[in-house]
Amino acid sequence: MSQTPDSVVRTYIQQHRDAFLDDLAEWLRIPSVSAQPDHAPDVRRSADWLAAELKETGFPTAEVWQTPGAPAVFAEWPSDDPQAPTVLVYGHHDVQPAAREDGWDSDPFEPVVRENRLYARGAADDKGQVFFHTLGVRAHLAATGRSTPAVHLKLLIEGEEESGSPHFRALVEEHAERLAADAVIVSDTGMWSEDTPTVCTGMRGLAECEIRLHGPDQDIHSGSFGGAVPNPATTAARLVAALHDEHARVAIPGFYDGVVDLTDRERELLAELPFDESQWLRTAKSYATQGEAGYTTLERVWARPTAEVNGIGGGYQGPGSKTIIPSSALVKLSFRLVAGQDPDHVEQAVRAWAERQVPAGIRCEITFSGATRPCLTPLDHPALRSVARAMGRAFEKPVRFTREGGSGPAADLQDVLGAPVLFLGISVPSDGWHAPNEKVELDLLLKGVETTAYLWGDLAENWRDAP
Amino acid sequence: MSQTPDSVVRTYIQQHRDAFLDDLAEWLRIPSVSAQPDHAPDVRRSADWLAAELKETGFPTAEVWQTPGAPAVFAEWPSDDPQAPTVLVYGHHDVQPAAREDGWDSDPFEPVVRENRLYARGAADDKGQVFFHTLGVRAHLAATGRSTPAVHLKLLIEGEEESGSPHFRALVEEHAERLAADAVIVSDTGMWSEDTPTVCTGMRGLAECEIRLHGPDQDIHSGSFGGAVPNPATTAARLVAALHDEHARVAIPGFYDGVVDLTDRERELLAELPFDESQWLRTAKSYATQGEAGYTTLERVWARPTAEVNGIGGGYQGPGSKTIIPSSALVKLSFRLVAGQDPDHVEQAVRAWAERQVPAGIRCEITFSGATRPCLTPLDHPALRSVARAMGRAFEKPVRFTREGGSGPAADLQDVLGAPVLFLGISVPSDGWHAPNEKVELDLLLKGVETTAYLWGDLAENWRDAP
Repeated sequence: MSQTPDSVVRTYIQQHRDAFLDDLAEWLRIPSVSAQPDHAPDVRRSADWLAAELKETGFPTAEVWQTPGAPAVFAEWPSDDPQAPTVLVYGHHDVQPAAREDGWDSDPFEPVVRENRLYARGAADDKGQVFFHTLGVRAHLAATGRSTPAVHLKLLIEGEEESGSPHFRALVEEHAERLAADAVIVSDTGMWSEDTPTVCTGMRGLAECEIRLHGPDQDIHSGSFGGAVPNPATTAARLVAALHDEHARVAIPGFYDGVVDLTDRERELLAELPFDESQWLRTAKSYATQGEAGYTTLERVWARPTAEVNGIGGGYQGPGSKTIIPSSALVKLSFRLVAGQDPDHVEQAVRAWAERQVPAGIRCEITFSGATRPCLTPLDHPALRSVARAMGRAFEKPVRFTREGGSGPAADLQDVLGAPVLFLGISVPSDGWHAPNEKVELDLLLKGVETTAYLWGDLAENWRDAP
Repeated sequence: MSQTPDSVVRTYIQQHRDAFLDDLAEWLRIPSVSAQPDHAPDVRRSADWLAAELKETGFPTAEVWQTPGAPAVFAEWPSDDPQAPTVLVYGHHDVQPAAREDGWDSDPFEPVVRENRLYARGAADDKGQVFFHTLGVRAHLAATGRSTPAVHLKLLIEGEEESGSPHFRALVEEHAERLAADAVIVSDTGMWSEDTPTVCTGMRGLAECEIRLHGPDQDIHSGSFGGAVPNPATTAARLVAALHDEHARVAIPGFYDGVVDLTDRERELLAELPFDESQWLRTAKSYATQGEAGYTTLERVWARPTAEVNGIGGGYQGPGSKTIIPSSALVKLSFRLVAGQDPDHVEQAVRAWAERQVPAGIRCEITFSGATRPCLTPLDHPALRSVARAMGRAFEKPVRFTREGGSGPAADLQDVLGAPVLFLGISVPSDGWHAPNEKVELDLLLKGVETTAYLWGDLAENWRDAP
């Protein structure tokens, strides 16, 4: 396996570091807050700015794609090798809301470097991580002497991720042909820590529902009627209590159908992570761990399907007391799904399970929303091995593997395009996503650049092993 | 047993009917709404008015008793027979809020008679039912030729019942000596129906608590942490689900300690009531009955202890979804208690039961409030027999027995004074307590007058059988 000499790549990056950071700062100054309608022009400006920047980087094609909401940016740089694999990079150019008075030490939209960290809204989530691909592909070309990337490189940078990606799936479906890829690289996640570079191999899926339980036509007196009619708040509570068995396994029949369990090798690799449970509990602002019997905390949050109640309500919740049987109650549930689970099948299982438990006299209304499929790339997938190798070269350290417990629009890419999804992120937990003083570590940002500088060559070379 | 001739009583009542109704209307014009601070002067005016009216009725003593809240009225008319039993009548002179725009067909504080019904706030709850005692005692004197009642008659008419009687127990304790009585007659309830005169033999007690469950220090992401830390909303739901066993019996160990069960005779008598379950369900605005196995609906609401969730809340309850593990959750429970149960013992049982179920990582805070003892007078109690006889004479019908599922301050009288409590009410379910267009049936109101006209003589005569 021929490799671009690492020193060439590093020198190139050092030479272009300042211009790269200046350009990123210019982009970060655009307050592309997709959740706030008065920032809609900024989100459009951000898309235009990125498309222009990608053209300047060398992408022959860079387009702004309109949606019914905020626009996305698509760019494409074909390889001169027609046999090369096609890679689609996913990221987003919109950011979370931010205001100085939320606790920022400096203007969130006026980037500033302090102690080798770049502070700005979007520095890590996700403009910084999108941006390392620009200098990365140029370093790849410079070091290899190529005029086109070793892979057919495509970028899709959406503008509504921080608003729940409401039009993303439709966008991907509309442009499925142009987006076609052999692998998807998502740069919108993080790694374990500054000292422990990691590649994420999957995200959990999600099914969400609201169950409304209707009892008496209005709140009724618990003295006059209590003990003799069904109470919808009791039904709501019983549903939630019945979610899990005594081993903290989800007790809904059919819920685990198809679940791909962890392999012994994956469990070994997860166990190698320097996991400190008391530190994790501090991050979780929680006071004890608790979960499915037979699994570690990391396995529970990353690799096992779960059921959680996100909200429950019914009757009187104010100060003091009110002796009523409430007229109605509601339960909001979310189910995290892992590889092998089908959200539609889970929905049917939950509906059947819930309806069976509703007593006579209570009417039950179940609404499902926002299903997201899980995604998981096997550890021996050649693209995953390439990402890990490239990252290992950049960080000069062994790369470990993680998963992500949350769910994201990446699953739509996997679904529609039928391509495996890999996660390449250089953000660390202290970067303050969605919080005041969001920052990116400059050293890590440049490691991101370096990783992609190695990645495309490695991927092209090793793709022949792909399944 | 010598009886006052009924015709004499009836003639007397007919002669004084108009003046009686005029006086009641004058009282009803005073908007003595205890829950609304700007009506405090009206509540005081109502107390003053009643004290003056009772003096005019003939009570040698009629006083306004101040409390830290609204004043009560106490009146006393000793019998010339020193051996006569002492009876304390309880009622209240404050009323629920009412406004024309709530759906009243006429001004709630401008009494009007339509179709032999008197419409006004307080007509049934409770001014009308307090007031029948004024003409009743005069009819008793007129028909028997006595100058003092056959019993030592006391009245205590409180001014904060519609505000939860916050100072009532302290008032009773302060004046326990002057309030001392052999029996308490509560005129603040109703009877089965216009066609079925009934005497209520007891009310359930009440223990109320709020359980707050604290989990993570703030709402946390259910994708990142779900399935690995305890969720306080789940704990809340499990507590509620664990309240009852599969027979709908309360599953809290020790909860049933001391419960006085229904006798066969009581069950027979309850079964004789013309109970129409579908009509009852319409009143309950509910769609099915459900309750403790082995008991009828009436037994469940009147004579069995119950546990109900009055409110449950935690996490996100708005539209759509929010994938969080909530930081905290709360449950509001109320327990209705029957004779033999001690609210303090129930509190200890509930605390022990709840605390045992709270997992590591969840902090539990339990607050009890507003305990009310149950009260129950045995069917063979001579005072109860007197009330039933007097009512039977007035209504010229057999009198049946009920209980009341709710709870009231009457229990404080039973507690502090150590006297049995009897319930003499002539209100019917259609009277619209706490609702627009509250009314009292004039025929029933006068039957109330007539009942008390017979009652004092009967009670004095038969008291020797008292235990």
